[in-house]
Amino acid sequence: MKFRTKEEYHADLRAMRPNVFKNGRFIEDIVTDPDTKTLIENESLTYELLQNPEHDAILKAKSTLSGETVARWHTLMTCPEDLMMYGKLKKLHFHHTGVCCAGVCTGWNTFNVLWSVTAEIDEKHGTDYHKRLEAWLRDVELKTYKIGGALTDAKGDRGKKAGQQVTPDVNLRVTEIRDDGIVVNGAKVMIANAAAFHEIICIPGTAYKENEKEFVISFAVPRDAKGLTLVQAEVKEGREGWDAMKYSTMASYLIFEDCFIPKEKVFMCGEWESSGVIISRFTANYRAAIGSCMSGNGDVMLGAAALMARANGLSANVFREKFVDMQMIGNLVYGLGLGAMLAGEKHPSGTFYADPTLAHTNKYYVATSYAELRRICEDVGGGIAETGCLPNYKDCTDPVMGPKIMKYVKGNSELSAETRARAARLSEWFTSGGGTMAFIHGGGSPDGARVVVRLNTPVDEYVKYAAGIAGITEKVEDPAPKK
Amino acid sequence: MKFRTKEEYHADLRAMRPNVFKNGRFIEDIVTDPDTKTLIENESLTYELLQNPEHDAILKAKSTLSGETVARWHTLMTCPEDLMMYGKLKKLHFHHTGVCCAGVCTGWNTFNVLWSVTAEIDEKHGTDYHKRLEAWLRDVELKTYKIGGALTDAKGDRGKKAGQQVTPDVNLRVTEIRDDGIVVNGAKVMIANAAAFHEIICIPGTAYKENEKEFVISFAVPRDAKGLTLVQAEVKEGREGWDAMKYSTMASYLIFEDCFIPKEKVFMCGEWESSGVIISRFTANYRAAIGSCMSGNGDVMLGAAALMARANGLSANVFREKFVDMQMIGNLVYGLGLGAMLAGEKHPSGTFYADPTLAHTNKYYVATSYAELRRICEDVGGGIAETGCLPNYKDCTDPVMGPKIMKYVKGNSELSAETRARAARLSEWFTSGGGTMAFIHGGGSPDGARVVVRLNTPVDEYVKYAAGIAGITEKVEDPAPKK
Amino acid sequence: MKFRTKEEYHADLRAMRPNVFKNGRFIEDIVTDPDTKTLIENESLTYELLQNPEHDAILKAKSTLSGETVARWHTLMTCPEDLMMYGKLKKLHFHHTGVCCAGVCTGWNTFNVLWSVTAEIDEKHGTDYHKRLEAWLRDVELKTYKIGGALTDAKGDRGKKAGQQVTPDVNLRVTEIRDDGIVVNGAKVMIANAAAFHEIICIPGTAYKENEKEFVISFAVPRDAKGLTLVQAEVKEGREGWDAMKYSTMASYLIFEDCFIPKEKVFMCGEWESSGVIISRFTANYRAAIGSCMSGNGDVMLGAAALMARANGLSANVFREKFVDMQMIGNLVYGLGLGAMLAGEKHPSGTFYADPTLAHTNKYYVATSYAELRRICEDVGGGIAETGCLPNYKDCTDPVMGPKIMKYVKGNSELSAETRARAARLSEWFTSGGGTMAFIHGGGSPDGARVVVRLNTPVDEYVKYAAGIAGITEKVEDPAPKK
Amino acid sequence: MKFRTKEEYHADLRAMRPNVFKNGRFIEDIVTDPDTKTLIENESLTYELLQNPEHDAILKAKSTLSGETVARWHTLMTCPEDLMMYGKLKKLHFHHTGVCCAGVCTGWNTFNVLWSVTAEIDEKHGTDYHKRLEAWLRDVELKTYKIGGALTDAKGDRGKKAGQQVTPDVNLRVTEIRDDGIVVNGAKVMIANAAAFHEIICIPGTAYKENEKEFVISFAVPRDAKGLTLVQAEVKEGREGWDAMKYSTMASYLIFEDCFIPKEKVFMCGEWESSGVIISRFTANYRAAIGSCMSGNGDVMLGAAALMARANGLSANVFREKFVDMQMIGNLVYGLGLGAMLAGEKHPSGTFYADPTLAHTNKYYVATSYAELRRICEDVGGGIAETGCLPNYKDCTDPVMGPKIMKYVKGNSELSAETRARAARLSEWFTSGGGTMAFIHGGGSPDGARVVVRLNTPVDEYVKYAAGIAGITEKVEDPAPKK
Repeated sequence: MKFRTKEEYHADLRAMRPNVFKNGRFIEDIVTDPDTKTLIENESLTYELLQNPEHDAILKAKSTLSGETVARWHTLMTCPEDLMMYGKLKKLHFHHTGVCCAGVCTGWNTFNVLWSVTAEIDEKHGTDYHKRLEAWLRDVELKTYKIGGALTDAKGDRGKKAGQQVTPDVNLRVTEIRDDGIVVNGAKVMIANAAAFHEIICIPGTAYKENEKEFVISFAVPRDAKGLTLVQAEVKEGREGWDAMKYSTMASYLIFEDCFIPKEKVFMCGEWESSGVIISRFTANYRAAIGSCMSGNGDVMLGAAALMARANGLSANVFREKFVDMQMIGNLVYGLGLGAMLAGEKHPSGTFYADPTLAHTNKYYVATSYAELRRICEDVGGGIAETGCLPNYKDCTDPVMGPKIMKYVKGNSELSAETRARAARLSEWFTSGGGTMAFIHGGGSPDGARVVVRLNTPVDEYVKYAAGIAGITEKVEDPAPKK
Repeated sequence: MKFRTKEEYHADLRAMRPNVFKNGRFIEDIVTDPDTKTLIENESLTYELLQNPEHDAILKAKSTLSGETVARWHTLMTCPEDLMMYGKLKKLHFHHTGVCCAGVCTGWNTFNVLWSVTAEIDEKHGTDYHKRLEAWLRDVELKTYKIGGALTDAKGDRGKKAGQQVTPDVNLRVTEIRDDGIVVNGAKVMIANAAAFHEIICIPGTAYKENEKEFVISFAVPRDAKGLTLVQAEVKEGREGWDAMKYSTMASYLIFEDCFIPKEKVFMCGEWESSGVIISRFTANYRAAIGSCMSGNGDVMLGAAALMARANGLSANVFREKFVDMQMIGNLVYGLGLGAMLAGEKHPSGTFYADPTLAHTNKYYVATSYAELRRICEDVGGGIAETGCLPNYKDCTDPVMGPKIMKYVKGNSELSAETRARAARLSEWFTSGGGTMAFIHGGGSPDGARVVVRLNTPVDEYVKYAAGIAGITEKVEDPAPKK
Repeated sequence: MKFRTKEEYHADLRAMRPNVFKNGRFIEDIVTDPDTKTLIENESLTYELLQNPEHDAILKAKSTLSGETVARWHTLMTCPEDLMMYGKLKKLHFHHTGVCCAGVCTGWNTFNVLWSVTAEIDEKHGTDYHKRLEAWLRDVELKTYKIGGALTDAKGDRGKKAGQQVTPDVNLRVTEIRDDGIVVNGAKVMIANAAAFHEIICIPGTAYKENEKEFVISFAVPRDAKGLTLVQAEVKEGREGWDAMKYSTMASYLIFEDCFIPKEKVFMCGEWESSGVIISRFTANYRAAIGSCMSGNGDVMLGAAALMARANGLSANVFREKFVDMQMIGNLVYGLGLGAMLAGEKHPSGTFYADPTLAHTNKYYVATSYAELRRICEDVGGGIAETGCLPNYKDCTDPVMGPKIMKYVKGNSELSAETRARAARLSEWFTSGGGTMAFIHGGGSPDGARVVVRLNTPVDEYVKYAAGIAGITEKVEDPAPKK
Repeated sequence: MKFRTKEEYHADLRAMRPNVFKNGRFIEDIVTDPDTKTLIENESLTYELLQNPEHDAILKAKSTLSGETVARWHTLMTCPEDLMMYGKLKKLHFHHTGVCCAGVCTGWNTFNVLWSVTAEIDEKHGTDYHKRLEAWLRDVELKTYKIGGALTDAKGDRGKKAGQQVTPDVNLRVTEIRDDGIVVNGAKVMIANAAAFHEIICIPGTAYKENEKEFVISFAVPRDAKGLTLVQAEVKEGREGWDAMKYSTMASYLIFEDCFIPKEKVFMCGEWESSGVIISRFTANYRAAIGSCMSGNGDVMLGAAALMARANGLSANVFREKFVDMQMIGNLVYGLGLGAMLAGEKHPSGTFYADPTLAHTNKYYVATSYAELRRICEDVGGGIAETGCLPNYKDCTDPVMGPKIMKYVKGNSELSAETRARAARLSEWFTSGGGTMAFIHGGGSPDGARVVVRLNTPVDEYVKYAAGIAGITEKVEDPAPKK
């Protein structure tokens, strides 16, 4: 199969309707605009890697639909090893960019979940969602598209249910069901890298009740569809020269205003009983593989720390144990995720889902140990890499003051002042800048993960074992809560 | 197949030569002697479970040798799922006993490693070790034997190599090679539960050099072989009534004095080049699965904590988050171990070995997080469960003082004083008594695990990634160490 | 002043009524009995140190009552520096014994609290408790007595209040008020080292309500008073040779049966409004100084770890960073306690009390970081120091088997086998034996400490600051809890 | 005394020579320029507080020089309680601004150290530095000046000593000694808030040897002195509307080019033997009090987290335990710092210095636990507060798109969209923006702190205690390092 190239991808983006908003205007050329070029550079990388046979084992696989060799991110995950490759692909991407590859990750996970869920819905309701999904997937697979998934609704007040909402559209909803499709209104928010996608698949963001059917919708939509506007979030980084990195992640608000979705791209509409299982399968695989992301991220943070150390004239050997600490954290979240995969279960429709308890455990550790990676990276780097300690690119390259500043940026280092400045910016970017990934809440919060683990902690069973070992024969029940 | 019963197992033990030494004498009836009965009770459990079809999925499997359904702990591990069942069996055992089942674990792991190593040696040296091993394994499989592995030599001074030893025998060695077998002298120390085994397989405890061939020996030996004496370690627990628990782990020194090993049970003799690979495969699988042990252990510690809380009149709900903390740790080490399995590799001989880096990472977390389980268990239990806070069984059941003491042990509790005392002893046993497992050094120290992770941290590769992201083109090498 | 000597102290103990029960009998000579001698050796140390001028700065001070130089543990604490010396004395003791010196610590803290509380009660109620206390204190100061404090009641069901108790005496109570004194019944439990005291001061163990006056009693009582029986708790340690250490801590149940307390030794009787303040002042100073105990303990655990490392042939340099980790923990709890002292407040009666919030914060860190000290000590020591790994003293010194065992205990070590065995036992004793101190619940549980910190966290005030910085002018109140 | 007002302070700044460089130009009006106004707002706060009698206990004190009531930050610290007030003043400032008040902190600490060091130098060398310092201090005290301290040299290659430097001026140095003063060249880098000071006192940044005399200089210099240029570091924060906070910390490079310092403001020149003691006293007090900064910072981060939670419709009660975790960390570093103060020592010259070991221990915990504060703050806030998740101020207030965006920023929240956006920005600012303080390396790195603790860990003494407890009589020495 011929795979889409980076150049073709850029041409696709340029051919799209300019519906991406940032800094007071709709962006004309998203590929080169200073506000988005690092994002596009980031999502372009997969196309570059596809052309490099060295990465074929990770990036390509046999399609379960066509039997052809296709981009792996369009194939179904059917066993633990498939899930592991999902993780490995993301880790590879993080190694090269330091940031998130939502364009291969989130869409992939989403259609893989819809695969089993549409099969279940069809069986129950006699619908034909599964066939639609398959047709759509065969198409994007052929085109080597970038596809993303969109889950998160605006909510705002976490204490309120969707049914209680005063502001309409706070959860994305269907406002009209027509013979040829549906009309949707509302928003999906904080959708990573959405501006760089060809298409986006929306799924319900929570488990809904029967009276909340209007929010239970799933569909694919082109990024530049009529009625869809993307607003870019602010990314904290300098814009000029070495104050910015080569790649970035950039989230969008997707605002739907009477956006029409043709029937063949609608995969759910009102089947509220299936909204819960979507979330649980989505999070199981997502949270099993998120450790691969963070471990890839940790590896480059380790590289950034070592780079800074060298620019400070110090050998990696000095920080040996700190590097092991970083690697241990990376291994933890990578390996624990793989464990969730091995302990997973195969669905009759052919797809495979990681074990939820271990996957949520992994999310918990991802969320709680990321801070350590940032801390150690900053610790190794020294004061120069701490935020607010270095003059900016503009001043460092000022014709008059620049040389005076750079004299002291270099100091006694054997490396150039520019290298030292770039290294410092990189560490700062990872520890408190645009390179900080949303590992705490991305894919769900650690508190949510704890709840899943709590529900899977059979205290009474454990008490029974303990009593047996201690030779206790009296019945020991949980006392009623004291007043 | 007919599986050995607990009663048959006890008869086996009683028929053995009394070569187990403890408290100044050789133990007559190891099954009932107060110094060993909890150990035998512990290792008997697997025989009980074998008779209960509820556990068949875990405890039985199809033999790769005979094709029969056999006790799983005699089968080869040939894929990640087999390794996972190795872990699950150990977790099941820990659930019921709170302690280590070395009699199913260590032997199993040992012959599984020898399977591939003997195949390699035979191919290289034209020996027939592999065939001997297979014959031996077919035999123990048929007999449903308890077999253990023995690795650790006495060493003493960790700074000295085996070749430098002043005291002879500090590493177990062959002292005579005969046509019909070999004669060995020396010791293997701290061998968990050895007194309860039918046979023990010894393997080299470290990677040896060419001039250290005498230490490179592997063989199986009956527990009561002539020339072999077992000395039992001291286990810190009360001996009477509820001061002791129902089960225990008990390590032995195995002292070999001119012990003859017939040829057909010798699996290695001098092939020093293979000693390193033994250690690395043994530790890979062992450290991948040790998380299953600790997670099973953690589950019952959680049960013990909940039991004590109830005896203190408090609902588990009060300690909800602490229980989640305990479960998180258990899930971490269980799941990370599974991850090492999934990332493992198949050997041409048919066996499967976990990924060393992830396995050692797991050992590191096992070693460092076990203390947290103990701490939380003690924290939930309250002062009564802390060591040195409760009068002993003898005094609590004293005809005169007993009732006076038990009045205050009970206090206002709605449970009996005895239940409260037993619960307190159980928590104390887990947190600072005989129920404390050697998770820090068992299967190797955390420092050793860190070394493996360090050797698998490609700093230069990571620096290259980092430099690419920051746009650094200057070559950035590690500076020579400063004087 | 002439200070009591160790020999005089032993004579005092021998002259007492044998009311200490252990292992089915009342102990005849508490000084030499194998069940108690390590306890007495422990509490004797302060008398030895008193005779050594090197320690005068810590052990002696000018009495606030007589103006004489007296044992410091009989003086009032009147400023932060006095509190610091309270901590330093305890640290010194831990350095030499590894265990708790309740006989100088708990009584001292108790009368120091009663000093201000009795003054307040007298002012309110016209009683003369303060004068009685002063007279008693002048007396024990003169005699250089060992005095202890006793706080903890039996409770049993933590969910029940004293007033709800079904079993009488679960909280110690007055059962008769006579002109010449009071009669008390009930128990104080888990009183560290009580068998080694001359006198014990009891105080209420919680804040009582008006209808619970009977439990609000404070008094001093000789250890061998009529109507008082001590039951010794079980301490987990071998009894023979090097299986036991030289010193130990040993808690007692104090059982009062119609025990008469003469009027002049009664310091509170029914003044329920003052029971709360006793607890809060007692815990403030106790928890400020408990870090001194744990830091002294940590120092010798560090020493034990280094000792074991040397016996394993390894230089302290190998474990340098682990030792710093241990020392960091020790410094944390020592220093944070001193901080609580500096932030404390002077009472009009002349005594000084540490800041409760910082003191409870310290208790929290003591309770949660002690596990780390144990873990690192075990980690450094290697397998030989883990519990259940070494044969016992009896077997190691067996005429026949002893030499065979000791050959392997020594291994290649350049030190003697005995030193290696003693070192291993010491580490084991600290990490999971009789040397494990009750730092989690001793002086109150970490959960209790967290509650105090929570009550001292002014969230609304902090929100106000935050809103000011962010320029938020809208009123932001805590939402009502969601149903 | 009449204290300088905020308005007078601003007038002072405006009267200065425009030697502050940022974004390609020298700033004209530092008070109102968008690049510096938040910095000036920050340093102005102390002047506002001085006018508010509510804060007199903290902000004012009796001068040790004039006996007048003066701004506390011009008084000498003569006892633990004075040091505690140093901490309290900084905590108060952090409460109101969330950022660092270098203008009261660093100068204060610097002259307090010079007070004792100049006294020692004068005694040794017959110089009159102490008198000069006193005269200068009397003057700034009268004027209620903002004074800063400057310590850090450019270095660059941490492996090289000052004497080995190739690039001249990498350490600030004297290039000419004249009768009326000295001429200096070089730089001090990363000097927090320097642009907001009236005067800056430079001191040597490390311990120098005899052949490095040229670097051993200390002097006070007006911020706008001829020959001195300040280059402002880049601070990562949005510049417009609510993307920026009200206050900021901003570090400068101070570049000295033939800058003349008149004799009466020179406090050291070549007395290399005293350079070490400067560093150790400076760091002792600085690191004892830095916990006060971080605890004040933590308090407002807690407030920011609670604010965000409320904007998300959630009660603080939901996050109760997380808030206690944050407060525990704040209490730890505040209290441990106070402990270092109590354990400090008085210098004959009258000033008081904290205990170095405890102070460095505190710095270590500050550096390692700050990441936890950031993590919990981000955890409580939810996805909206994570970096890169929210559109910027410009877009949120865009006439067309603004309302569409703000509809979803508000969601169901009962608070306004603006409040929710401001709250999110505040949390982001603290966790990965301009509100991230340099607590890891500010005042020295945690590794440096560990070295101090290591040098103060008497392993041999601890081994001696341990051996005594275990009854070991054999001499146990550290083995020579193995080859």
